[in-house]
Amino acid sequence: MKLLETKQAPNARRVRMFLAEKGITLDTVELDLKNGDNLTEEFRGKNPFAKVPVLELDDGSFISESIAICRYFEETHPEPALMGNNALQKAQIEMWQRRAEFGFLFPVGMAFQHCSGFFKDRMTPNNDWGKDCIKTAYGYLRLINAHLEHNDFLAGNEFSVADITMLTTLDFAKVVDIRLKESHTHLKRWYDEVSARESAKA
Amino acid sequence: MKLLETKQAPNARRVRMFLAEKGITLDTVELDLKNGDNLTEEFRGKNPFAKVPVLELDDGSFISESIAICRYFEETHPEPALMGNNALQKAQIEMWQRRAEFGFLFPVGMAFQHCSGFFKDRMTPNNDWGKDCIKTAYGYLRLINAHLEHNDFLAGNEFSVADITMLTTLDFAKVVDIRLKESHTHLKRWYDEVSARESAKA
Repeated sequence: MKLLETKQAPNARRVRMFLAEKGITLDTVELDLKNGDNLTEEFRGKNPFAKVPVLELDDGSFISESIAICRYFEETHPEPALMGNNALQKAQIEMWQRRAEFGFLFPVGMAFQHCSGFFKDRMTPNNDWGKDCIKTAYGYLRLINAHLEHNDFLAGNEFSVADITMLTTLDFAKVVDIRLKESHTHLKRWYDEVSARESAKA
Repeated sequence: MKLLETKQAPNARRVRMFLAEKGITLDTVELDLKNGDNLTEEFRGKNPFAKVPVLELDDGSFISESIAICRYFEETHPEPALMGNNALQKAQIEMWQRRAEFGFLFPVGMAFQHCSGFFKDRMTPNNDWGKDCIKTAYGYLRLINAHLEHNDFLAGNEFSVADITMLTTLDFAKVVDIRLKESHTHLKRWYDEVSARESAKA
């Protein structure tokens, strides 16, 4: 079993941090996205949608989509649970994981694609849209900051995969100059705590 | 327990179809998004991110995000399984569900927001971005059509929540004039089959 990834990509770090929390180590293969390693016919055979990371299983099957890869390991290595232990917890963690994705990871990723020029050889950047996404991302930080005034972690009192999505995106967001501000008191408390976990080095 | 929703919204239909497959009936409350029913202080107390649907539980807690609501019912009513029975199935269904969301539901939703003018009182539509999303959506239909040549359903041989996301989005996509074309032979076969399920009326 091995993980095809790109060290720099926030989605790849998301999976590495999840694995580190579970104490799982995997062989990894580094792809160079700038060089188009993900656009080859061979790679599209593993993931027709040409995204990293991809988990290659020993039986020859492939799992892509970071959270689907995390789900696989949540099932095979249930402890410590990072996706909840009962119906309500599972739903609440999934809700927060998705809020972090749609409200923050998604606009940050769009801002990166449309403002940094990194992928300009394979897409048409729309700078206005990228800038609009930066506003959306800050709007989300305000809401999440308010939520963290009364909650230790995104999904309540337990660390979960939702915190992993949020932390890895916050670190990546620096590339489009999105940073915590002084007003984000509660987010800052949470950020310092979650960043101090051993798994955050992954 | 009740579901706060908007009949027209594809995300709400996604949850209704999931519930219909499980044979679950719930009380529902209809919100008028055009009228801003989701922007009131009362509604933001239930979902600070102001989106529908929201599941209101009898203990006073709330679950938003369609797939998180589906996860709740997958746990409380496991049969028929719509999110997989083992680690590999669960991961593969989640992978396809997310591919349908990010590759199709997301661009269709963006095209709707940026080209239809429906929400123009509360956002700045970016028509170029909306049109670009329509191209992305068609690119995804081509890939999914190729996949369905060798698979009965999105995640393989079993109907799953991934098919629900895809069907409800395809039906909604008509509002931005995205439709199946003659070249989408396999998608058409799949569409006819999935549309014929009793749950598709939900």
